[in-house]
Amino acid sequence: MVSRTVLVTGAHGFIGRHVCRAFNTHGYSVTGIGHGDWTVEEQRYYGVSKWHCADVTLDSLVAYGGIPDVLIHCAGSGSVAFSMEKPFDDHLRNVTCTAAVLEYIRTAAPNAALVYPSSAAVYGNARRLPIHESDPTRPSSPYGFHKLIAEQLCRSYAINYGLSIAIVRCFSIYGEGLRKQLLWDACRKLNRKEYEFFGSGGEIRDWLHVTDISSLLFLASKHASSACPIVNGGSGEGIPVREILKEVIRTYGSALALHFSGQSRAGDPPGFQANIGLALEWGWTPTITWRQGVHQYVRWFLAAQ
Amino acid sequence: MVSRTVLVTGAHGFIGRHVCRAFNTHGYSVTGIGHGDWTVEEQRYYGVSKWHCADVTLDSLVAYGGIPDVLIHCAGSGSVAFSMEKPFDDHLRNVTCTAAVLEYIRTAAPNAALVYPSSAAVYGNARRLPIHESDPTRPSSPYGFHKLIAEQLCRSYAINYGLSIAIVRCFSIYGEGLRKQLLWDACRKLNRKEYEFFGSGGEIRDWLHVTDISSLLFLASKHASSACPIVNGGSGEGIPVREILKEVIRTYGSALALHFSGQSRAGDPPGFQANIGLALEWGWTPTITWRQGVHQYVRWFLAAQ
Repeated sequence: MVSRTVLVTGAHGFIGRHVCRAFNTHGYSVTGIGHGDWTVEEQRYYGVSKWHCADVTLDSLVAYGGIPDVLIHCAGSGSVAFSMEKPFDDHLRNVTCTAAVLEYIRTAAPNAALVYPSSAAVYGNARRLPIHESDPTRPSSPYGFHKLIAEQLCRSYAINYGLSIAIVRCFSIYGEGLRKQLLWDACRKLNRKEYEFFGSGGEIRDWLHVTDISSLLFLASKHASSACPIVNGGSGEGIPVREILKEVIRTYGSALALHFSGQSRAGDPPGFQANIGLALEWGWTPTITWRQGVHQYVRWFLAAQ
Repeated sequence: MVSRTVLVTGAHGFIGRHVCRAFNTHGYSVTGIGHGDWTVEEQRYYGVSKWHCADVTLDSLVAYGGIPDVLIHCAGSGSVAFSMEKPFDDHLRNVTCTAAVLEYIRTAAPNAALVYPSSAAVYGNARRLPIHESDPTRPSSPYGFHKLIAEQLCRSYAINYGLSIAIVRCFSIYGEGLRKQLLWDACRKLNRKEYEFFGSGGEIRDWLHVTDISSLLFLASKHASSACPIVNGGSGEGIPVREILKEVIRTYGSALALHFSGQSRAGDPPGFQANIGLALEWGWTPTITWRQGVHQYVRWFLAAQ
């Protein structure tokens, strides 16, 4: 049997790498495209058999993409702060790039299934938790707007050209190897014996380990259709930032007392917690609890020092 | 008193030209940017004092735009059929171009008022007529999606950076000089003694003369704010295509009997009629009835033969 092929944009990124591995584990031949320096050994470790270091544009996709069975579009910027600072660049990375991917599929690989990893940021300041996929979308940052707009481009191509697409709205994805965001900042602060954090500590986030979102992105490729389903990718649990940080400190073995500035950052909504009913219906379940995940993360951080 | 300045993108386009004239009539100094060959005399006729023939990009806006008091972003593609055929090009013209205009205002002219002429196509297949601005948006063509997405970019910049913006959703805009769409096609068919038209003839459209939409776009610049108001630009009347064509035939002096194919074109929704309560509240009223407008149009067509 000829093996099925997947093209992963942004394959060197944090979620991209783990998506490559998930598909490779299921017997797919994996091609990656995007930016990043990694050795052939690293590529093989994540199951990538072909790697093209290039901007993700219509031209580069046509040149390197072939005719994949599945495309997971992980390329793009993932930072609210960056989007506030440079909204036009964020637009090019998250919107224009997605438009190019869709046009490539329409013109070169119309039978491919596309999965777009979107973000809970599309919900903005949710009025109630947990958030259902049908709840209103009211982004509160350029990043949130751009992810929502990219979703709508997906819907346009699904409706107007019958492309098979599924959208996964990722909540707070983390895991060993992620060198940014809350857990990374926290470990580095503890390392410097700092204990001051942004916000109130009461902000609710829904943490999902990167291996769990990868298995959901894989499953979503089986559900892609011209109806363009949208599914939440979270654990279903809403955990206050304070609880996460206490667990980090405990695992770290530090005796520091937490202190919060009380100031929230622009574009940071107060609460995220996913209703994961649809993902559960699809037969998916998260396998790593947030406590297990935090332990693994902190142990990875300490081992890497 | 130093005169106020307006920058009009797509100034040579059908709506663009009339917008230039409206602002010039109100004492504005008018700069135009976009594509199109026109003589200095033609530019003066429409009140344009500076014309830059260029793509509307961030670079060209920074180079030629100066620091206007008002910017009316008329550049962009306006054809559902083109968008179905070339969705990526339509995306670049309607979405990427709007993103560049917004970034230019944010970085170079943050106090300018921006008016974005959107389209009734954002509503798609409306469940009830007349359509209120708060009714659901369910576009049924790439064009409709791209106009909706451009609106959301406007909202993102208004919310996140406090830019002053107003959005006008244009219904069926027509007038002497428009060499495309229903009236143009109808006059040319009559000229060739053809009488077969697309659709059922029962499709409802809301016709607004280009001088009336121009006065609304002018007024909208006074209402632009970080709340990013959206206002319908229509007459408030829904007229079946059959009635319009009968009036064209009557004015044309033809005795031809109408015939409809019964086939509708992809992406063409069956009904559009604007609720214009908000525009009326602003103190605007349409001044040309659809019958007057059709008479003027057909007389212009016949005189130009």
